[in-house]
Amino acid sequence: MATTARHRAQLETPRPDIALAQSLFESLHEATADGEGVTRESYGPGENAAHGMVRDAARSAGLETDVDAAGNLYMTLPGRDRTAPRVLIGSHLDSVRRGGNYDGAAGVLAGLSAVVGLEQAGIRPAQDVTVMAIRAEESMWFSASYIGSRAALGLLSPGEITRIRRTDSGRTIAEHMVDCGLDPHAVTTEPPRLHPESLAAYYEVHIEQGPVLEERRIPVGIVTGIRGNFRCREARCTGEYGHCGTVPRSLRRDAVAAVSELIFRTDDLWAELEAEGGDLAVTFGVVSTDAALSAASKVAGEIRFSMDVRSQSVETLARMRGHFDSTIADIEDRRGVRFDLGPCSETSPAKMAPSLRTRLAEAAAALRVSATDMPSGAGHDALVFAGLGVPTAMLFIRNAHGSHNPREAMEIEDFAQAAEVLTMVLAGPE
Amino acid sequence: MATTARHRAQLETPRPDIALAQSLFESLHEATADGEGVTRESYGPGENAAHGMVRDAARSAGLETDVDAAGNLYMTLPGRDRTAPRVLIGSHLDSVRRGGNYDGAAGVLAGLSAVVGLEQAGIRPAQDVTVMAIRAEESMWFSASYIGSRAALGLLSPGEITRIRRTDSGRTIAEHMVDCGLDPHAVTTEPPRLHPESLAAYYEVHIEQGPVLEERRIPVGIVTGIRGNFRCREARCTGEYGHCGTVPRSLRRDAVAAVSELIFRTDDLWAELEAEGGDLAVTFGVVSTDAALSAASKVAGEIRFSMDVRSQSVETLARMRGHFDSTIADIEDRRGVRFDLGPCSETSPAKMAPSLRTRLAEAAAALRVSATDMPSGAGHDALVFAGLGVPTAMLFIRNAHGSHNPREAMEIEDFAQAAEVLTMVLAGPE
Repeated sequence: MATTARHRAQLETPRPDIALAQSLFESLHEATADGEGVTRESYGPGENAAHGMVRDAARSAGLETDVDAAGNLYMTLPGRDRTAPRVLIGSHLDSVRRGGNYDGAAGVLAGLSAVVGLEQAGIRPAQDVTVMAIRAEESMWFSASYIGSRAALGLLSPGEITRIRRTDSGRTIAEHMVDCGLDPHAVTTEPPRLHPESLAAYYEVHIEQGPVLEERRIPVGIVTGIRGNFRCREARCTGEYGHCGTVPRSLRRDAVAAVSELIFRTDDLWAELEAEGGDLAVTFGVVSTDAALSAASKVAGEIRFSMDVRSQSVETLARMRGHFDSTIADIEDRRGVRFDLGPCSETSPAKMAPSLRTRLAEAAAALRVSATDMPSGAGHDALVFAGLGVPTAMLFIRNAHGSHNPREAMEIEDFAQAAEVLTMVLAGPE
Repeated sequence: MATTARHRAQLETPRPDIALAQSLFESLHEATADGEGVTRESYGPGENAAHGMVRDAARSAGLETDVDAAGNLYMTLPGRDRTAPRVLIGSHLDSVRRGGNYDGAAGVLAGLSAVVGLEQAGIRPAQDVTVMAIRAEESMWFSASYIGSRAALGLLSPGEITRIRRTDSGRTIAEHMVDCGLDPHAVTTEPPRLHPESLAAYYEVHIEQGPVLEERRIPVGIVTGIRGNFRCREARCTGEYGHCGTVPRSLRRDAVAAVSELIFRTDDLWAELEAEGGDLAVTFGVVSTDAALSAASKVAGEIRFSMDVRSQSVETLARMRGHFDSTIADIEDRRGVRFDLGPCSETSPAKMAPSLRTRLAEAAAALRVSATDMPSGAGHDALVFAGLGVPTAMLFIRNAHGSHNPREAMEIEDFAQAAEVLTMVLAGPE
């Protein structure tokens, strides 16, 4: 009986169209290769080419396709009730300069292969299932996050598109939209294309940008939440320059010693919170004394540094803020220095919907796909949907060498397993 | 009886010619002012001008003057026995670019005012007493230390003067010597002008380059020893760049965290050694992630830093070397990084002669000049003489704002007290 049930489940399970995805990965790479990796500029030729190819493939497979004012592409398998809140599977097709072929694209193609799989299996879902190829997710081009998804949800302001300039071209978002044949005025004056209440769920598949799945030899991650953060990119500590041989320890105001203490004590606290099971990542990525004023024979009078703190937990972020306040005050007192954290930015963490996580986990179990819970350290368009209360979930695919570089290395077998899990969830009732 | 003795001591005590020194400080400043401070380039116009002025003043005051092949100036008050080992009072007349008026010059003028004071008092010392104005002490010009004193003692190699180039002009020491009317060939082929065994003592007066005397409100310091050091100017630590949100703590190879730990633990050990009464100064003056590769959102894969460790004690320096070996190995192990200290240089500490220190302390006490023992953190020509076994001693003069900058602030009253102590010692038997 158990055997019969499993046999029936396999027969009934639609399969994602992996051949379609594989062929699209190859065409995308070919069309946007830059010698080292791929370059698909937000609202530029590379992103446009990718959108064109994916749209054509969706049409050939029999999906309805549509583009909104901001250039986001929607590829829909109609449901039995076309007015019911739809299921959205989103990801982006732009990349960083000299990036890899998978960051972003893997999510769109996972969605497309799943929905085409449903279509090929003759499954008509209860409600529309739409794959959304989102524009301009990578913030390296415009120093703004989630331009496409925010535009679709009516969260982009007219000021942003006319003021924010692409870091390489110096031209605004609006100007680049016009280059792509879009109408930037419509983006902010027409009613938003998506409304949170008309979305039953938002799924996003993405290659893992860290080494966790690879280290643990697991192909698929089920995201528990997207970390919030606070970041200070231009912090500095000021002390006093002095001769390294002649200023005794007690009279020094050594900015390097002060910041080193802050970094060391913060790292210590991180280890402690981690041992308690807390979720946290702290990074001091840029640390630099003044090139003109510093010297090997001088006590450093100034040092600049960046600070990036991430956690899924609001409480942990608050605790870290408290740590910085008290530790900095203590170091200032003892070492005669002054800290100035400069302008800092903050994003709240987003929890993934427990109901959707459960479905993904059950589908993985049914398919014998090895999967593990894990946080997302990086931000994604999912953050925008979750922030508006849309039930949101994410799948990660194992990937070597991180993302945002030509060495991204996702195996198509791992991609297939994630797409299978997604397909099974989409085939079920929403 | 005590009163009579003190009265007699005062009558017999020759006084330094402070008016001469003050007038020379003014002329030196006027001749070498650069708009902000003074600039007296080693083997350049500023140093030449200073040597000329001091030589003229010494001649006018009745001293014998003489210049050696390397351009060092000797100003001698003849003693009763002209063949006996002489007493030398040395310092330099060059300065850093945009330096202060006192670093170096104060020592030459203290010696000159003392010897002229002896001469004016009609004192003929037992042996020759010579003030030596030394060339090229500041290593900023030629990246070589103690060129003048080493030349006088036969320690300068032909290779050095033909290979080492001035950092601004790109021309060699030999070429700059020729500009000054000197014969560089003679510097290394003629017999050295000074022999350690013909020197009864070497004294050097210098402004304090740190804030100790000022903080303690004491005008004069009696140097106990000159710190040795080891320095690594181009050390670096290599880890691996990674996304700040996605690489968990256990998989990071964070170069910033690694170097911060090294700096923090070294500072901790310094505090401990200081509490035990040890003499030490540790400085990480330059610390810098790569401007092109680092980012606020990346774990740092590399950081460069400098390290300067100084102590009067050979044992403490050895202990610090042991600390770096074991701490670096431990950090490399735990953090998956690699340290490369690059080329490091080493100088041994020099002890000042106890007999000379006692004479200086007794003279200060007799003159009611408040004086304290202290180490010299910076190097001086005295290091070269002490290294050859010449009994050596140094006096520091209180000075605000450190040295090597236009804000050097020595009070002439403090200079006078140091010069008085020196004069009294020179007036006594050697």
